[in-house]
Amino acid sequence: MTRLFILDVTLRDGMHAIRHQYDLGHVREIAGALDEAGVDGIEVGHGDGLDGSSIAYGFSRHTDIAYIREAAKVCKRAKLTTVLLPGIGTIDDLKRARDAGIQSIRIATHSTEADVSEQHIAAAKEMGLDVSGFLMMSSANSADGLAGQARLMESYGADCIYVADSAGGLTMRSIAERFRAFDAVLNADTQRAIHAHENLSLSVANSVTAVENGATRVDASLAGMGAGAGNCPIEAFVAVANLYGWEHGCDLFKLQDAADDLVRPIQDRPVRVDRETLTLGYGNVYSSFLRHAEKAAEQFDLDPRAILIEIGRRRLIGGQEDMIVDVALDLVERANA
Amino acid sequence: MTRLFILDVTLRDGMHAIRHQYDLGHVREIAGALDEAGVDGIEVGHGDGLDGSSIAYGFSRHTDIAYIREAAKVCKRAKLTTVLLPGIGTIDDLKRARDAGIQSIRIATHSTEADVSEQHIAAAKEMGLDVSGFLMMSSANSADGLAGQARLMESYGADCIYVADSAGGLTMRSIAERFRAFDAVLNADTQRAIHAHENLSLSVANSVTAVENGATRVDASLAGMGAGAGNCPIEAFVAVANLYGWEHGCDLFKLQDAADDLVRPIQDRPVRVDRETLTLGYGNVYSSFLRHAEKAAEQFDLDPRAILIEIGRRRLIGGQEDMIVDVALDLVERANA
Repeated sequence: MTRLFILDVTLRDGMHAIRHQYDLGHVREIAGALDEAGVDGIEVGHGDGLDGSSIAYGFSRHTDIAYIREAAKVCKRAKLTTVLLPGIGTIDDLKRARDAGIQSIRIATHSTEADVSEQHIAAAKEMGLDVSGFLMMSSANSADGLAGQARLMESYGADCIYVADSAGGLTMRSIAERFRAFDAVLNADTQRAIHAHENLSLSVANSVTAVENGATRVDASLAGMGAGAGNCPIEAFVAVANLYGWEHGCDLFKLQDAADDLVRPIQDRPVRVDRETLTLGYGNVYSSFLRHAEKAAEQFDLDPRAILIEIGRRRLIGGQEDMIVDVALDLVERANA
Repeated sequence: MTRLFILDVTLRDGMHAIRHQYDLGHVREIAGALDEAGVDGIEVGHGDGLDGSSIAYGFSRHTDIAYIREAAKVCKRAKLTTVLLPGIGTIDDLKRARDAGIQSIRIATHSTEADVSEQHIAAAKEMGLDVSGFLMMSSANSADGLAGQARLMESYGADCIYVADSAGGLTMRSIAERFRAFDAVLNADTQRAIHAHENLSLSVANSVTAVENGATRVDASLAGMGAGAGNCPIEAFVAVANLYGWEHGCDLFKLQDAADDLVRPIQDRPVRVDRETLTLGYGNVYSSFLRHAEKAAEQFDLDPRAILIEIGRRRLIGGQEDMIVDVALDLVERANA
């Protein structure tokens, strides 16, 4: 079996969990601990990727470049990476990120829109970066549909394709189906990867199922720090990987210490499966919408679940954060009708 | 597919999580909410079962009988149940529990010692109770070994046999193996059941895998309230069961409200996968040892993980709580040697 490449997303997806407010000290400390614990990759940047800092997504405390430079100072072994969503980040942003220290990039699109990634994947390859295609909201496309999109990203030059379960709405069954569909269309040397969320309490199981079905790269984060109920908790995944006898470079106890000593203390909302975050997975809602929906619920005195279920019904996708308030207003109107 | 029987253990396994200190108001409120949310069974009593209240296991705030009577007052639909460990509880305790309102009992033994349950199972059947055999620390026996023990409990008259993963050390693979081994030896009309713990972050996935392999009864609890990292969180399991289209009687939103409004606020230690609780699953340690081990670690200034890993290595089983201090003393001696 191939050695697993374990990529920590605490400093990127985890940004959502504290509304993009890490300071540079957090980045230095957490990236240093992750590097020391043997993770293969460390992702850094605004939760919504390069240049995501904006009124729609929320402003981050520092720029992506400042965050990347800070992480680069302390990383001795791990590859630095970040994410770029075409339409938000540009090829110029990518060049600056490379100059600041990233060696790898994930080009992310909605799970039905891989075709918008063509020039970004090609440009990233020309820059000599390791490139992953990152199919967000993979639960919003069928297994075969998703495989078709993966094939497009592969044809643009991606080295690796991600099933990114941004809603945390996939189950072990639906994960296995998607990786089997990948096998039918992708080249054998194109890597496959999993990015899970914990909303249905299945992130570790889904990551394990992905590996059993061919994934060799796994995204995870310290104490699950990430959008919604968080990502796959790296400590738990590594413990299970050890029990399965899978090869990887991580030290379990060091990861546990970093999770409990460095990350949990800075969570300003507990990252866990609760009333609201479970509803993200159940309603098939983009995890990054959580804190926007909670804010709207408070503002309009609504049950956050009502907003989330309606967002899922309307199939809102990343980039439509401003419509969450519209949904809330419609629910208020309906209640008063 | 058979309709699932969902049994909530918040008021029994959850006792471990607050050192057996529920008051009667908690029991009334939580049992009432569970009954209203449509669960099929509600387990009530000391974490270590009938007559578990003692210096070795910790004294509960009220007697088992007082807890059961209080729950019986508010239950309109759900069957009340509790657990009895031969050697701790007696047949007289069982009679009193039946008179107080239980209709069902779980007779629990270590996963290699089913033979000590013979008279208790027989006596419970004579009292007209629904009887489950409950194989604790199922991770400490092989699949075939466990099936042999299950067959014994069936031969004594048990209506249902549990794979009870008290250490939270089983993975989806090892769950599937155990239920397949059950199929090879148990009668088709003997029910199979799963009692999972969250220590490896797999409790929902393991419960789903159990159902896919023939289990029709599932233990779960509000917000996962239970020993170690807790039990299978009932809200998340029910959400996944809905997505799989499985039939059951529970209302998801009511369970979520009970979990977040009634149970989380009384957790005096967060019930979650963290440094210590993950180590229970990883080291194959009885979950109920958690708070005893944490107390010993504090007393002797040790890393709780060191104690837990050593407990797992020595294969301590329920009932040997007093040896946790011995383990700590040995570790101190070793460090000073």
